[in-house]
Amino acid sequence: MQRYDKFDFPLAETRQHLETGPIVLVSSCWQGETNIMTMGWHMMMQFSPALFGCYIWEGNHSYEMIRRSRECVINIPTAANVDAVVAIGNSSGRSVDKFKACGLTAARASRVQAPLIEECYANFECRLADDSQIDAYGLFIWEVVKGHVATDVREPATLHYIGQGRFRVAGRVIDMSELFKPQNL
Amino acid sequence: MQRYDKFDFPLAETRQHLETGPIVLVSSCWQGETNIMTMGWHMMMQFSPALFGCYIWEGNHSYEMIRRSRECVINIPTAANVDAVVAIGNSSGRSVDKFKACGLTAARASRVQAPLIEECYANFECRLADDSQIDAYGLFIWEVVKGHVATDVREPATLHYIGQGRFRVAGRVIDMSELFKPQNL
Repeated sequence: MQRYDKFDFPLAETRQHLETGPIVLVSSCWQGETNIMTMGWHMMMQFSPALFGCYIWEGNHSYEMIRRSRECVINIPTAANVDAVVAIGNSSGRSVDKFKACGLTAARASRVQAPLIEECYANFECRLADDSQIDAYGLFIWEVVKGHVATDVREPATLHYIGQGRFRVAGRVIDMSELFKPQNL
Repeated sequence: MQRYDKFDFPLAETRQHLETGPIVLVSSCWQGETNIMTMGWHMMMQFSPALFGCYIWEGNHSYEMIRRSRECVINIPTAANVDAVVAIGNSSGRSVDKFKACGLTAARASRVQAPLIEECYANFECRLADDSQIDAYGLFIWEVVKGHVATDVREPATLHYIGQGRFRVAGRVIDMSELFKPQNL
């Protein structure tokens, strides 16, 4: 799998990569152990500071690691990573080192202990901003504190999960920017 | 714009249409007035009962209508509706009847007062399940109480917003269902 040269992505533009609703890989680190989970239930919640919400099921091995460390990295895979995405979803960090098993490279993040996945074209380092909705809804509310995006990826073939092992791939661009009114975002 | 024959969609499968992260049109009704807004910040939160969260900015004319009525319909447009999507985002219900202005047809919903948009291939009727996060985050947590999906749309060309008037269209399907483990969703 390809690795990427990346640049520091402006945090207030995080929505460009997450609002489209891609499947993401959530990497975590707790007491020296790392893990990765697939996740599709997430949303932008604020531009600046960039807030991002996601649902994590308490049955996931990552749940306690993320809850205790209060950090994670949101990594965005593309169609080139689909085998790793499925393998990660099909295994548990209880018994498998997913970085090794899936041929993924852990790189050091700059603001959190959780590792970046080098083979993902974008990585967003997150710190827990609000834990008040975890018990009721499994809802983690994150502040995105650092973004890394590939310099040479213009239209990433992100994966959008339908369920039951099937994904839609992000396709053509419709550009209505001539009609765009900035106040309407 | 095309209208669709629709069937009652099983609520526990709602994620098939919303987890992919499409731009949606939120229709509302309050004191006899109807309105529509575009919305891209949303997530599935539970399978059954189906819970769905979304962010609504208090500056939107729809905000008070939705907050007071405690109901809405989540309508999913496709690339065929992109002109209407942009027109809706570019106008305010304070001064425009968006159904008329955008050539859209309001149909009666079965469980809520807010109208279905007939030209959208899918409509999900929602009732407010939890208003506790509206003041802090503009986060409305909905129970999906009725689903309507077109009978003859297999791979909807949904719109996924990048910002600044540009959309990705849902493209090809990657089918990994042979590797699918039901317990992993």
